[in-house]
Amino acid sequence: MNASSDSQLQRKDQGWSALFSEPMSELVQRYTASVGFDQRLWRADIRGSLAHARMLGRQGLISAQDVADIERGLADIATEIEAGRFEWKLILEDVHLNIEAALTQRVGDAGKRLHTGRSRNDQVATDIRLWLRDEIDGLASLLAAMQLALLRVAERSVDVILPGFTHMQVAQPVSFAHHLLAYVEMFARDAERLADLRKRVNRLPLGAAALAGTSYALDRASVAAELGFDALCENSLDAVSDRDFAIEFTAFGSLVMVHVSRLAEEIVLWMSQNFAFINLSDRYCTGSSIMPQKRNPDVAELARGKSGRVVGHLMGLITLMKGQPLAYNKDNQEDKEPLFDTVDTVRDTLRIMAEMVGGAIDPATGDVDPKNPGLTVQPEAMRSAALKGYATATDLADHLVKHGVPFRDAHEVVAHGVKLAMERGLDLAELPLADLKALHPQVGDDVLSVLTLEGSLSARQVVGGTAPVRVREQIARHQARLAGA
Amino acid sequence: MNASSDSQLQRKDQGWSALFSEPMSELVQRYTASVGFDQRLWRADIRGSLAHARMLGRQGLISAQDVADIERGLADIATEIEAGRFEWKLILEDVHLNIEAALTQRVGDAGKRLHTGRSRNDQVATDIRLWLRDEIDGLASLLAAMQLALLRVAERSVDVILPGFTHMQVAQPVSFAHHLLAYVEMFARDAERLADLRKRVNRLPLGAAALAGTSYALDRASVAAELGFDALCENSLDAVSDRDFAIEFTAFGSLVMVHVSRLAEEIVLWMSQNFAFINLSDRYCTGSSIMPQKRNPDVAELARGKSGRVVGHLMGLITLMKGQPLAYNKDNQEDKEPLFDTVDTVRDTLRIMAEMVGGAIDPATGDVDPKNPGLTVQPEAMRSAALKGYATATDLADHLVKHGVPFRDAHEVVAHGVKLAMERGLDLAELPLADLKALHPQVGDDVLSVLTLEGSLSARQVVGGTAPVRVREQIARHQARLAGA
Amino acid sequence: MNASSDSQLQRKDQGWSALFSEPMSELVQRYTASVGFDQRLWRADIRGSLAHARMLGRQGLISAQDVADIERGLADIATEIEAGRFEWKLILEDVHLNIEAALTQRVGDAGKRLHTGRSRNDQVATDIRLWLRDEIDGLASLLAAMQLALLRVAERSVDVILPGFTHMQVAQPVSFAHHLLAYVEMFARDAERLADLRKRVNRLPLGAAALAGTSYALDRASVAAELGFDALCENSLDAVSDRDFAIEFTAFGSLVMVHVSRLAEEIVLWMSQNFAFINLSDRYCTGSSIMPQKRNPDVAELARGKSGRVVGHLMGLITLMKGQPLAYNKDNQEDKEPLFDTVDTVRDTLRIMAEMVGGAIDPATGDVDPKNPGLTVQPEAMRSAALKGYATATDLADHLVKHGVPFRDAHEVVAHGVKLAMERGLDLAELPLADLKALHPQVGDDVLSVLTLEGSLSARQVVGGTAPVRVREQIARHQARLAGA
Amino acid sequence: MNASSDSQLQRKDQGWSALFSEPMSELVQRYTASVGFDQRLWRADIRGSLAHARMLGRQGLISAQDVADIERGLADIATEIEAGRFEWKLILEDVHLNIEAALTQRVGDAGKRLHTGRSRNDQVATDIRLWLRDEIDGLASLLAAMQLALLRVAERSVDVILPGFTHMQVAQPVSFAHHLLAYVEMFARDAERLADLRKRVNRLPLGAAALAGTSYALDRASVAAELGFDALCENSLDAVSDRDFAIEFTAFGSLVMVHVSRLAEEIVLWMSQNFAFINLSDRYCTGSSIMPQKRNPDVAELARGKSGRVVGHLMGLITLMKGQPLAYNKDNQEDKEPLFDTVDTVRDTLRIMAEMVGGAIDPATGDVDPKNPGLTVQPEAMRSAALKGYATATDLADHLVKHGVPFRDAHEVVAHGVKLAMERGLDLAELPLADLKALHPQVGDDVLSVLTLEGSLSARQVVGGTAPVRVREQIARHQARLAGA
Repeated sequence: MNASSDSQLQRKDQGWSALFSEPMSELVQRYTASVGFDQRLWRADIRGSLAHARMLGRQGLISAQDVADIERGLADIATEIEAGRFEWKLILEDVHLNIEAALTQRVGDAGKRLHTGRSRNDQVATDIRLWLRDEIDGLASLLAAMQLALLRVAERSVDVILPGFTHMQVAQPVSFAHHLLAYVEMFARDAERLADLRKRVNRLPLGAAALAGTSYALDRASVAAELGFDALCENSLDAVSDRDFAIEFTAFGSLVMVHVSRLAEEIVLWMSQNFAFINLSDRYCTGSSIMPQKRNPDVAELARGKSGRVVGHLMGLITLMKGQPLAYNKDNQEDKEPLFDTVDTVRDTLRIMAEMVGGAIDPATGDVDPKNPGLTVQPEAMRSAALKGYATATDLADHLVKHGVPFRDAHEVVAHGVKLAMERGLDLAELPLADLKALHPQVGDDVLSVLTLEGSLSARQVVGGTAPVRVREQIARHQARLAGA
Repeated sequence: MNASSDSQLQRKDQGWSALFSEPMSELVQRYTASVGFDQRLWRADIRGSLAHARMLGRQGLISAQDVADIERGLADIATEIEAGRFEWKLILEDVHLNIEAALTQRVGDAGKRLHTGRSRNDQVATDIRLWLRDEIDGLASLLAAMQLALLRVAERSVDVILPGFTHMQVAQPVSFAHHLLAYVEMFARDAERLADLRKRVNRLPLGAAALAGTSYALDRASVAAELGFDALCENSLDAVSDRDFAIEFTAFGSLVMVHVSRLAEEIVLWMSQNFAFINLSDRYCTGSSIMPQKRNPDVAELARGKSGRVVGHLMGLITLMKGQPLAYNKDNQEDKEPLFDTVDTVRDTLRIMAEMVGGAIDPATGDVDPKNPGLTVQPEAMRSAALKGYATATDLADHLVKHGVPFRDAHEVVAHGVKLAMERGLDLAELPLADLKALHPQVGDDVLSVLTLEGSLSARQVVGGTAPVRVREQIARHQARLAGA
Repeated sequence: MNASSDSQLQRKDQGWSALFSEPMSELVQRYTASVGFDQRLWRADIRGSLAHARMLGRQGLISAQDVADIERGLADIATEIEAGRFEWKLILEDVHLNIEAALTQRVGDAGKRLHTGRSRNDQVATDIRLWLRDEIDGLASLLAAMQLALLRVAERSVDVILPGFTHMQVAQPVSFAHHLLAYVEMFARDAERLADLRKRVNRLPLGAAALAGTSYALDRASVAAELGFDALCENSLDAVSDRDFAIEFTAFGSLVMVHVSRLAEEIVLWMSQNFAFINLSDRYCTGSSIMPQKRNPDVAELARGKSGRVVGHLMGLITLMKGQPLAYNKDNQEDKEPLFDTVDTVRDTLRIMAEMVGGAIDPATGDVDPKNPGLTVQPEAMRSAALKGYATATDLADHLVKHGVPFRDAHEVVAHGVKLAMERGLDLAELPLADLKALHPQVGDDVLSVLTLEGSLSARQVVGGTAPVRVREQIARHQARLAGA
Repeated sequence: MNASSDSQLQRKDQGWSALFSEPMSELVQRYTASVGFDQRLWRADIRGSLAHARMLGRQGLISAQDVADIERGLADIATEIEAGRFEWKLILEDVHLNIEAALTQRVGDAGKRLHTGRSRNDQVATDIRLWLRDEIDGLASLLAAMQLALLRVAERSVDVILPGFTHMQVAQPVSFAHHLLAYVEMFARDAERLADLRKRVNRLPLGAAALAGTSYALDRASVAAELGFDALCENSLDAVSDRDFAIEFTAFGSLVMVHVSRLAEEIVLWMSQNFAFINLSDRYCTGSSIMPQKRNPDVAELARGKSGRVVGHLMGLITLMKGQPLAYNKDNQEDKEPLFDTVDTVRDTLRIMAEMVGGAIDPATGDVDPKNPGLTVQPEAMRSAALKGYATATDLADHLVKHGVPFRDAHEVVAHGVKLAMERGLDLAELPLADLKALHPQVGDDVLSVLTLEGSLSARQVVGGTAPVRVREQIARHQARLAGA
């Protein structure tokens, strides 16, 4: 056995280095090892190592042969990992030392030179940013898909009238499409936030070494270019200790999940027998182990529940970083699991919610699968609910205002009208014209047209209003915006 | 094919029941299935099913043969799971349906009768409480072990003088043992809280069925007795929807981890070269991939960091339950992972911190392993630090008060004295007696004795104070309290 | 200038003591002062000071005349504060120094002796525990009142049939009283938790002084007895740095608010036109500035929203304490506002929810005010909703089981029955007997009786079930339990 | 009594409108009223009302005389509020109705016309965004001031050598300026985030009315232009229910406070006697009520503690919005206090930390006040600490690598060297050259120069490294970047 195969890392079960008089206890190994979860970063780790090695070569810090050996060794290792044949060792702590040790076993001294000018502190920060950057791009697509799914249902629901609620009380009639567009706005804002934070994720820490930079003449800019980073982390202490990006990302994720939880809450309500505003196909429902009649909207409930998980991760990460002195502390290892789980949860949730709402897209044609077309709208149930709560009372007040009555007085006149209608068990539009006119001298003969659901709806033509003409414009605007997505 | 092999559950990949016209989508299966993590509950699930089946038999709701078949089938299944041979199926969603379906395959109609008068809603609530109750008992032991570990170090450190800090400024001398006893108090309170919450965990939901109770003549009290529950959940809707115990448990866990984070923070500081108050053996330290001189107190840092994880779970669970209408909603499935991870984290952290601080206990003898004796105290470093910040200034003020000077005036006199000593670069005890006496006519000849670290320490004889005599009493009190643990 | 007017505290605007060469900057004064919010503790502060002073007198540490002076001075100050005439000064930082300085101005040297053997660290810890202990007793009463309010509505609703939901899908019929009793269970658990944590709040820190105890011969036990504390804090470092009680209290508060948020969610839904299960009197509703027909259940919504506030305080306090080294750090000043606001929010919310649900109690007679009788139940709306979702399907399955069909097979048979009924637009109970019997040979002639709402309800006689006989027992049990409250 | 004095709002203590048969209970009034805290929005409310009224006038929806009356009335009200003479009434619930009612009392029917085409739902959303937008601009300046304060200390500390820590163990020497620049990076990222979120805050909800838009021909774009909004909220339901901006803002605030907590933690440590790396002037310190020698860094501790408060607000707001159905619910009223307190806390904290670190700026000259120059650096204490932990061990390894030894082998060689030095109680630089050379044949004669603190520091010339030449470049870059701020 020559020196090159007898690397420090290969003897790690005897202690970290000559300084250590005993090996790490097994309990400590298990407690501190991250390889169980950070092996997910292996692709990023290898990409980062390749870029680092090539730069070391270009700078003359290692030989061309070393670079070639490293490339060959890492390619082998990638193949093994991909095939599930790579043996991850707990004693080697993390994905980084596992791969480095395996490399040295394969290629000898070249492997021992890979870590030149690098520390695990900047290496792990690089790996996780590289991995997250790619996940962000995937999530951006899913946010677009979620919006497109909502738009597909909206397109066919512009003229479907829903009772708009405030305080869960019937307020004013709204287009069901308009209601769905509110969620398009939310997810569009999420996409904006994601694009904003991507800039702060996509900066290269490598070159910061342990904390102070390095004495080797590294060319950080060329590494950044090879790996697609937009910029360098400009301060080495900050580079290894900054976990802002993880907190900002889980804050983004928490907002996405808050939006999902609101949509899910409505889906659950709309599926309830007392609303019956929509139907979900069986594939998105589950039954009960005891009640044979049950079809439960489990997916929506679970999505709502999973908001807690992501919010918990945000809180966990903030707690983690609070009060930490510079520079790197081991606490930071705890950044990974919350981040991984946030990515997984947001991704799976967006995918399944988009499909459940807007149907499955055939990847070949880009069309909706006719067997899995998304949720079904029940216009009649919505309409009859909209007729229950004097939804056009504001229209009557507006009618008076347009005939010169100050708004506050009109509001009070209509309250009397609603009281009268309630006593008679009628809707406002069902009151005889004479009774309506008796409410106030300014009630005109044309009043009945403003008291219908359709009249109320089409009157709200202000920008952002629920009039079908406005809603169609908004759908077109969103479709154009998302065309390139 | 006879009826018994054609159970509803065996055909679940065709849909939940005849009501369903299509099977659950694969994406939905993966999203909603919990078997990946709730299989951890298998022992509790089988115990609960056995108790339920026997009670059904006693009540004449199923036959003695059915009970025997179920016992035999579940014993087989337990053996298979134990041996790692049981095949968990995603389509069967969770640990409950997996085991029930496997049982029916083995024992036919008896298996199909097991779910009589039961729903998964009360079944899962029972399983998780049973599992958690046992984990609580394990954690109670670990909290005792943690306290005993601190007491072992305290016992040999009563006369070791540490600079007590407030605001990280040297305040007054304290016994290092006294300092450690503060943590004993914290973990003792945690143990109290754990005992309190155990009462609320250890109540039996089974019998609540889906939400309303059941029409079968179940004998819930006998099931509770067999399973060791203290009481019954007295309202069926509450029984299936209550997750208070999970929130209360993670709140307990958060407090434990807050205490751990405080102790860990101090260990990290004490290990820092600028303090060097203690030393940890190599087995609890890690090196650096780049800096050859490093011995890092990784375990303490990671323990501190893991507080974030548990706090995140608490927040996640609260978010989960907020605003949920009765009774069971699928959201509740999200209770398990945070609870499991809280148990794992608190358990592993207590175990490793106890060992690192107080040494490993030989299970055969109950003695500390001499090769793994816990942290090493560096009395000289503590003492020299205690001499840096005028730690006995309060003693000088108290001296004046005892000679009749009002405390507020004495406080001001001593401020002048400290200023004088600072200007001369001396400690108070190093000032010439004449200078001390010049501060105030009531400064007595015996003043120097109160200005030493030992004099200050031994003076604090109030109950709860740091005088060695008091500290020894406290150690004895705690040892007696924990003797039965 | 006599001594009494020249106290150190009176000259605080010139610097803390002779050690300080300049006064605190005004910005710092405002940032660090707590007197703006901690003056709420004045009663506790004075009670604590009186007990301390009397004990100092008993121990001969100050004279009887000093004690009398202090008593007189503090009585004066209490009168002034009560009357709103006391001038709180920012420069004196907090409630403690304000009162001490005012005392010294009134009674001279006796005032300067009050702080003998005491520090603000143990003083504030004492004040806040004393204050919180009393608030806890108030909250315990309010939790009982909340339960009694629910019980009053329950008493008159035992036979009112509500569709029990799981997943917001109609599941099984339940008694509305049974549903309300689920909340009684929740608030009863909250009351248990409150009683448990009270033990840990009600321990006396005074005597710990700054952090190390004191050299004066204090009699801590007698102070505890005078102030009604159950026990002493046994470690001085822990006594001044422990804020567990604040975290545990806000965790309790968070659970109460989670329960309130669930009840509030249901009230909001039940008030919605699509349910109309209950009505609230106008005094608990608000209108809209624009929609004249609106009657919004604002109180319930706001109560639901206020859960966020209390949960936020819990998270804030945990973040505050995470990683703090011993002993007292200024961070701890941030414990007060979250604690105060939690007490206020939980108190106001319980009071208003209890009244809105169960009516206002005339304090003279203990009877409900007939003009403010609490929520109105709408049995017909509940009943018609319960008839919508095949709520008795489980009863049909149970019927088959009782005729010998294994449960899993019965479940599947009923699914076919529900499918048939759905196709015909009928409820199960409306299917012709022949069709029911065609489902399975074991369907008996008596099947129709189990398919009615009343039949289903009264069948669930298991302990904790919804059968009226059981519900009445539970109401009686709770009333007996609360009789002494 | 003429019409103008008999507005609906003036009679609100008799009930919301004719629909209501009884007034709101007093308890409900107090519970639901927001005027106690939302009066802070009065300026934004009046600005918004003026823009709305002028637009109504331009669109011919109210007369020019009405506009003039409204302008006059609101100007009067503004003067009264400014002077503290305005009487806020609880019965009028909030700032909006208080001002509207006062306006109608002054100007009659014109006041009653102001609410035309507007609801409180869009009004409050507009007010809070307008208010927050202006606060954001103030915070942007304070973030710049914080960075400039750090840069001022950095400028004079480039050559001051601090022991850089990882895991609180001495790692490598770093420039103190470099260390401070890490915080400049953090606050610079906060400023980026603030600029990003400002875009999403600065969108106009007005015109959304209650939830559906309005039937009046409002010109929303002109209102946005007058009020300086960048864009319109394009969906009326979203406009009134969106509180993303509040969550995103408090997430920003939480990150700022996490950064502050880290800096504060270091300041507290550096002030501790065992470090003594810096000194703070007396005006930023407080004394102790009992220990005469104390000078505590209260401001830093409190700033650290206040991170909990802001994090709590973030969690509170997320909990608030989780699962809320559309559109406006009363829960949303709970958005204000957390938002207000976050703004106040972040603003006050940044202001005081900037001044404490970098000194007070004379607003006249822009220069630092020589009497309040910020923190004092203690280079000798830092230097002697840097010599304690073999901080240049990595440099020895790098020396070997540059002589051809693979990094992993060099790492191991140096571990032996450190062990040797430890045994002798010497630093690496103090070992005889012969001993160093005995470690490995590649140790060169020039080795000693790389083992000094200065040699190590100046070697780290990689971009982002701690070499003084790089640090000076970074300072210049930041100064240029902030020049326009």
